[in-house]
Amino acid sequence: MHLPQQVIIREVGPRDGLQLEKEFIPTVRKLGLIRRLVEAGIRFIEVTSFVNPRLVPQMADAEQVMQGLAAGSGITYSALILNERGMKRAIEAGVREIQAVISASEEHNQKNTGMSIADSLSQIEKTTVLGQENGVTVRAAIAVAFGCPFSGMVREEQVFSLVGKLVEIGIRSVTLADTVGVANPRQVYDMMQKLKEKYPAVEWCLHLHDTRGMGLANVLAGLQTGVVMYEASIGGLGGCPVITDAPGNIATEDLVYMLEEMGIDTGINLRELIRAVRFAEEMVGRRVGSRLSSLG
Amino acid sequence: MHLPQQVIIREVGPRDGLQLEKEFIPTVRKLGLIRRLVEAGIRFIEVTSFVNPRLVPQMADAEQVMQGLAAGSGITYSALILNERGMKRAIEAGVREIQAVISASEEHNQKNTGMSIADSLSQIEKTTVLGQENGVTVRAAIAVAFGCPFSGMVREEQVFSLVGKLVEIGIRSVTLADTVGVANPRQVYDMMQKLKEKYPAVEWCLHLHDTRGMGLANVLAGLQTGVVMYEASIGGLGGCPVITDAPGNIATEDLVYMLEEMGIDTGINLRELIRAVRFAEEMVGRRVGSRLSSLG
Repeated sequence: MHLPQQVIIREVGPRDGLQLEKEFIPTVRKLGLIRRLVEAGIRFIEVTSFVNPRLVPQMADAEQVMQGLAAGSGITYSALILNERGMKRAIEAGVREIQAVISASEEHNQKNTGMSIADSLSQIEKTTVLGQENGVTVRAAIAVAFGCPFSGMVREEQVFSLVGKLVEIGIRSVTLADTVGVANPRQVYDMMQKLKEKYPAVEWCLHLHDTRGMGLANVLAGLQTGVVMYEASIGGLGGCPVITDAPGNIATEDLVYMLEEMGIDTGINLRELIRAVRFAEEMVGRRVGSRLSSLG
Repeated sequence: MHLPQQVIIREVGPRDGLQLEKEFIPTVRKLGLIRRLVEAGIRFIEVTSFVNPRLVPQMADAEQVMQGLAAGSGITYSALILNERGMKRAIEAGVREIQAVISASEEHNQKNTGMSIADSLSQIEKTTVLGQENGVTVRAAIAVAFGCPFSGMVREEQVFSLVGKLVEIGIRSVTLADTVGVANPRQVYDMMQKLKEKYPAVEWCLHLHDTRGMGLANVLAGLQTGVVMYEASIGGLGGCPVITDAPGNIATEDLVYMLEEMGIDTGINLRELIRAVRFAEEMVGRRVGSRLSSLG
């Protein structure tokens, strides 16, 4: 079984994990979680999003979160945006890397961004120009890349075409997201094999969900295609807003455990990571769904 | 990704899934579950165990379960045994296939069977002779094959040596069990590759747990070595008695879902299987831990 020697974890808990929490979490608590994640050895963290605070009130303190971050060498604090307006706020707040989001289906893109795919692409183009002018790295994530709850199957060609347009715009790092947890390992393997062949210069990242228990199996498939960056959320927090009682994001600790057990270096200290899980549990006021954390 | 076209599910829910239930489940209910599993298309079922009823009171009705089974063509009802005494009871009860159990570590074998590994091997030898005399197929399962809670790491050589002895005795079908859910995909892949090379005539089966979320990833690794038989438990019932609040067995429905999504034929109807999950939930009086069933 050919697997990479090192894997990068892109932690999305502070953004994706918390954004659906109903009760507003004070900025200082969010910063406390981020600090513990850094202490555990995580080097890539999506810390917040610059989106409409009326639609996502939990992220209304994006500027304050950015301001409160401890400067750390070798740590990439990233933020999510959906449009040029968000990009301008992010630049103003001193963000050095952003992840723009676009969906593989029109229906999901409309619901998630209030725009058509064409308009999102145009926003990402403007975002990329702003990024180049201001020295901000722009990544892009393709949501519902493996299936969409509103339009069902997502054709591979649709994903290929979107990637092509993103590359044309100047994006070099692309995340494929299984937003609703419907991907299966064969699909992940086949898609990534083809994408890597067609776009060898792109840095790929996978954002997989564990909704149907296939999260880590899908990671294993991704690893076998040579993908070395995976998004995950501490404690498995967050996930899909349309499926409320099912686990969503892969738990960072479950992912790190599997990788380290297979001899793949993540640079992350699992014991410290479990401390971050406990802190996250206190923050949201409940036990979290990860397998590892339930073992105590 | 090279995967088999067909996979056989060996359902162990009625035995492994129920054996730890404190409240005795009436035989007629157990038979109701088995009937629903058959209706869903399952063809290999471990229906009970012939073990000491004082130690496993839930299986005290092994004879009655066997007696109550509907004869079905093409269905293999199997029972678990630990020694010659259990084998004699099984033969008496009309069982056509048994699975004998032995552990890869002395400590676990002692706790599980009250015997040394050498004594278990001698019991399995006698069992195999009885099987040949009575036309009963004898399979063997090696518990804690990927790690043991009492003795930690289990050396591959220990598993190899046990397999060698089982083959010498005349066993042709061997299940490797990750009894405590510590196996990782690379380990499963490497072990099965080597075993298949060394013992090409053995029919392999894997019994994997999802305790740390790696259950289906481990199945994926097994599939890539060409193993085509997997044990699973309806609703993920059962698992390891020493870890009470963590999921144990892979849920049959999660496994079937992943396989069918990857285009691998199991012959099982997922909709009917979910009906069996609901029946099992009523039996044990609680929701079960499988990912798929929690989606409703």
